[in-house]
Amino acid sequence: MLQEIAEQPAALAQTITEERGKIAQLGKFLQGRGIDLIVLVARGSSDNAALFGRYLIEITTGIPVSLSAPSVHTIYGAKLKLQNALVIGVSQSGEGEDINRVLEHSRAAGAYTVGVTNEAASSMSGLVDETLLMHGGRERSVAATKTYTGQMMLFYMLAASLADQKPAFDYEAIPDLAARSLEQQPAILELVQRYVFMENCVVVGRGLAYANAYELALKLMETCYVVAERFSSADFFHGPLAMVERHFPVIVFAPPGAMLSGVRDLMRRLSELHADTLAITGDLEVAGSCTRAVILPREIDEFLAPIPYIIPGQLFAALLAEAKGLNPDSPRSLSKVTRTL
Amino acid sequence: MLQEIAEQPAALAQTITEERGKIAQLGKFLQGRGIDLIVLVARGSSDNAALFGRYLIEITTGIPVSLSAPSVHTIYGAKLKLQNALVIGVSQSGEGEDINRVLEHSRAAGAYTVGVTNEAASSMSGLVDETLLMHGGRERSVAATKTYTGQMMLFYMLAASLADQKPAFDYEAIPDLAARSLEQQPAILELVQRYVFMENCVVVGRGLAYANAYELALKLMETCYVVAERFSSADFFHGPLAMVERHFPVIVFAPPGAMLSGVRDLMRRLSELHADTLAITGDLEVAGSCTRAVILPREIDEFLAPIPYIIPGQLFAALLAEAKGLNPDSPRSLSKVTRTL
Repeated sequence: MLQEIAEQPAALAQTITEERGKIAQLGKFLQGRGIDLIVLVARGSSDNAALFGRYLIEITTGIPVSLSAPSVHTIYGAKLKLQNALVIGVSQSGEGEDINRVLEHSRAAGAYTVGVTNEAASSMSGLVDETLLMHGGRERSVAATKTYTGQMMLFYMLAASLADQKPAFDYEAIPDLAARSLEQQPAILELVQRYVFMENCVVVGRGLAYANAYELALKLMETCYVVAERFSSADFFHGPLAMVERHFPVIVFAPPGAMLSGVRDLMRRLSELHADTLAITGDLEVAGSCTRAVILPREIDEFLAPIPYIIPGQLFAALLAEAKGLNPDSPRSLSKVTRTL
Repeated sequence: MLQEIAEQPAALAQTITEERGKIAQLGKFLQGRGIDLIVLVARGSSDNAALFGRYLIEITTGIPVSLSAPSVHTIYGAKLKLQNALVIGVSQSGEGEDINRVLEHSRAAGAYTVGVTNEAASSMSGLVDETLLMHGGRERSVAATKTYTGQMMLFYMLAASLADQKPAFDYEAIPDLAARSLEQQPAILELVQRYVFMENCVVVGRGLAYANAYELALKLMETCYVVAERFSSADFFHGPLAMVERHFPVIVFAPPGAMLSGVRDLMRRLSELHADTLAITGDLEVAGSCTRAVILPREIDEFLAPIPYIIPGQLFAALLAEAKGLNPDSPRSLSKVTRTL
């Protein structure tokens, strides 16, 4: 897992190089075809990448995006009206049966289908209209890291290709920013000792950082066996805040940008409740108001932040698992390809 | 909270009587107008009701449904292409600022807008094209119960009115089924003693029962301060299963229907892991394979189950809070109307 975390800057750069031309063409084709709705279909970490894609695509293109409920197709056999839709399956292995079934149904219903996968020769690639590939080699750890950020990168490229106007981000900068995040490894190795006996926690992020809250919580559940909740800061105020008592651990993604003032409000409220807060942030006010912080370069704004910000989270999960005497590469009860319908 | 739980059968019956005519007309109007996409906008328990609505509407009508990410509108200022969309805001008070902002933006973008609320004179009612009301009086407990099931009932009625064919359910039966669930109160009063020291748990449901997993988890977080995760059984296998160790508490919604065989598989896996399972079920095989069960009438199939099945969950949360010496009506750190953007 640590090795695959470290491979990310190179893998991301290669994905940009290899897929740039294909995605630019696909964007032109889809703009000509006219797309009213984009549906994303995924499970696990891929579903978290899709959650990021949802925000990025809606903000960048104005096209409404829906995260599919696979069972509507696979268990209830509903036939959705998807004639003008783009349906994108996201699966590291390309072998998720439920994802592939939704893609088949959607194509039969007239949708244009795209697969986002790490495996060019997968079942998914065989059944979609177009395949977008992550480049950076097979992922061997059960806990996904480089495929999560690879999927995010493909969503940056796709969103840019579907936008009417120049987007608010330049994704070419991301591999270098990812490399800078890796420099945090020694600091995080020390930091995790403090969390060895943490049994549960909440991870908070909002907007473009929301998916990272889901992804870090999933990493903590699967590699560290911590009961980790995930919320947007807005949803957190609608009920779950009541759980927070003195020393309750809350991990917050707080990149500079439009979301920051809301995150600062949350940090003040958590401080009043004497929560134990860990922020991943480039904002010095947030860093100064929390119990512990991982401080990233201030110039990484929230549009470029999702990938550089999840890397300290991945390192935190992998190093905490090791500090607890667990093997993050093969969590108990799990296998790399999960078969569900 | 207990009083409002008990009011539900009468409140549901009244909502059917009062709103039936209006919703039938609305359905005809919308079928004539042509709706390509339905977007649901909500927070907290209302968002859980919307999650139920999403499954029910897609299965019943074939129209794709998206659960809105309000910050896309309120923080990032995106202008979504919603000309052929129906956008439904769901808010008990009708005063959620972010929900109302999304409704305003959507209406300006050409969408037809509907408000689902408990307050006829709310800000929401003033700005939408049509308001659907729950009938059953103001909700005084901070923890929503009768408004959650009232919102679900309005989704049943709306889905039926938008369907091309006769739907797979007769919602008129639900108030009586809800009354039968209330008969479980003495059994649940005894049951909760066993859970007084439970610090965390996972709640599982899938498909039409998925929203109830979110809602019961939220009730446990806000009234009992239990760190309660919520998953579909499919997502649970993608990572979070690793958390489960001997005696880890898992609460499962298992109504008879298309989802049941998958739930039985999950129960077998949890049994191998020696988890401590509590099922709310009408299936005797599931009831026989779990640590504890709340057994509901076998004839309640999954299409009618969501309301009668959440009631034992509501009772469980309210009675567990009391057994822990907490006041479920006014959880610490929360207020009835939550203001977020």
